[in-house]
Amino acid sequence: MSELKNDRYLRALLRQPVDKTPVWVMRQAGRYLPEYREVRAKAGDFMTLCSTPELACEVTLQPLRRFDLDAAIIFSDILTIPDAMGLGLHFVAGEGPKFTKVIRNAADIANLAVPDMEDSLGYVMDAIRLTRREIDGKVPLIGFSGSPWTLACYMVEGGSSKDFAKVKGMMFDVPEQMHALLSVLAESVIAYLNAQIAAGAQSIMLFDTWGGALSTTNYQEFSLAYMQQIVAGLTRENEGRTVPVTLFTKGGGQWLELMANTGVDAVGLDWTTDIASARQRVGDKVTLQGNMDPCVLYASVDRVEQEVASVLAGFGQAKTGHVFNLGHGIHPTIAPENMQRLVDSVHQLSEPYHA
Amino acid sequence: MSELKNDRYLRALLRQPVDKTPVWVMRQAGRYLPEYREVRAKAGDFMTLCSTPELACEVTLQPLRRFDLDAAIIFSDILTIPDAMGLGLHFVAGEGPKFTKVIRNAADIANLAVPDMEDSLGYVMDAIRLTRREIDGKVPLIGFSGSPWTLACYMVEGGSSKDFAKVKGMMFDVPEQMHALLSVLAESVIAYLNAQIAAGAQSIMLFDTWGGALSTTNYQEFSLAYMQQIVAGLTRENEGRTVPVTLFTKGGGQWLELMANTGVDAVGLDWTTDIASARQRVGDKVTLQGNMDPCVLYASVDRVEQEVASVLAGFGQAKTGHVFNLGHGIHPTIAPENMQRLVDSVHQLSEPYHA
Repeated sequence: MSELKNDRYLRALLRQPVDKTPVWVMRQAGRYLPEYREVRAKAGDFMTLCSTPELACEVTLQPLRRFDLDAAIIFSDILTIPDAMGLGLHFVAGEGPKFTKVIRNAADIANLAVPDMEDSLGYVMDAIRLTRREIDGKVPLIGFSGSPWTLACYMVEGGSSKDFAKVKGMMFDVPEQMHALLSVLAESVIAYLNAQIAAGAQSIMLFDTWGGALSTTNYQEFSLAYMQQIVAGLTRENEGRTVPVTLFTKGGGQWLELMANTGVDAVGLDWTTDIASARQRVGDKVTLQGNMDPCVLYASVDRVEQEVASVLAGFGQAKTGHVFNLGHGIHPTIAPENMQRLVDSVHQLSEPYHA
Repeated sequence: MSELKNDRYLRALLRQPVDKTPVWVMRQAGRYLPEYREVRAKAGDFMTLCSTPELACEVTLQPLRRFDLDAAIIFSDILTIPDAMGLGLHFVAGEGPKFTKVIRNAADIANLAVPDMEDSLGYVMDAIRLTRREIDGKVPLIGFSGSPWTLACYMVEGGSSKDFAKVKGMMFDVPEQMHALLSVLAESVIAYLNAQIAAGAQSIMLFDTWGGALSTTNYQEFSLAYMQQIVAGLTRENEGRTVPVTLFTKGGGQWLELMANTGVDAVGLDWTTDIASARQRVGDKVTLQGNMDPCVLYASVDRVEQEVASVLAGFGQAKTGHVFNLGHGIHPTIAPENMQRLVDSVHQLSEPYHA
């Protein structure tokens, strides 16, 4: 493997000094880039794009050719595990992800098993291996998974949901059944992320997209406990380097202290949490990732720069401990020029903080 | 007007001692009741139901005939103001509210004016007057409005939205335009709620359904400031009694102290905020309303009772200051028996706390 040329992102995650605040953006490989839309159109459907290593590698690298980003994230989907469990993931235009088979009772859950990683998810590891070769040490490559609770939401609901009636109905009515489901998912996520690390992922993100839909006690019991189990089960050293782990619960601003105590290196913030207060609350225990509102990118480039300055000022004086990102994924209709200004402003405006 | 026979809800809002914790439920007049569905079917469409005082009164009273509730809330919609401004509110099955005309630029906003209350919203006041007669002092009647920011979200997006791209785009790109829109909305809400109070509403709820989609600083500037203006502009005494005001920002758990400082009597909590922590944070400054997860009602009646006990225990020992409610509206598919157990459990299990 080539020597890593830019390790600003990994260093910031481990709270080692950096020259500038590193930046990457959730969904940086995505529909707002015309070159992505071209590859996506050729692939035909979204799952073909995910499951063809050459295509996944190509779209992973696209944003790095345009923008001075400090990390790449392997192009994939958070729902590959349930798909590998036989649920039949597919995408319906305008409605998001759907499963052909849904999980509704104890028998459905008893039929689930930890998927064989190379047999059913080997395409992800192939994409990681290929991308590591092609990226040639320019920046580190992030691997990721959805959290057990988030996967369970989609598996029980059969797709996206506004109110989580079915999955929460199961959780409240037959909690032991929900725990059985979350257990097999947690074991699967551990195997999946360790396979990604072995294939070359240099950092791990755990996306808890729907943890924020829970009450504080339910979050601890049904989402956080399983993420903690995952963090404890991950390979944390590879290729002579620490593999840092970032945990992101969207809507989890009330639970930062709980998240920071799971043994992770970094906690992701959505834009609803004030980053200055977040830093006061968790101190230097973990690095913070985030947290500009993705909708700022609908404004002028000057306004984008102004908001970047405001997030950097909110995080405040510190030689490290901040990874700049949006508070959630970049929207598909954003102009690439605005993304350009975002990335460049983070580097330019953060230099004085690290001097 | 008949003497008010049960003032437990009003007393708790004003932090006066009560014998039991009062309870009402958001959307208690709604689709989970077969008798509601019958009236709704006869009315034909939702707006006919809202705008026909006899029908709105009938569905407002329905839940009181079944359950021992401590308050009624006038049956209406949060979007009556923009409808009265000429935007053409209508409902598309499965998609929620829609506007025929949307607000996208300065000219659209310049054309908006505070609606004449009796001309264009008289049907709401008629429904309140009729319901006050029919309710015969059994329990107090709550009037309500959406918050300016929440109304703006629907008016700019044209309906529900997942990411608020258009309304936040306007907010970030042309903030002065957004302030102009919010100003005319705040003035309208003040006139609307004061007309409801004059017609007989004995308590006011301000629903900030989408404030939680904002960052902390944007919440203060674009939602909270206008709600504070409204609270300051309301008639707070009528019929020789205080008219208490409750403010509910869904997803606003990080901003309880800010909400408690607006001059309101009570702050509504969704289920993501731990009620014990909430009470520690705001002390006895305001009453707390909430906050059981509406999805608990999908579980068994015994589980419902157990969760009621847990919310009451979370609020803790106090002779007053708690109004029991769900953390958001009751879902349309809940069994009325579960609602029954919820209401009865709150009264039975709370008695020892007030002894």
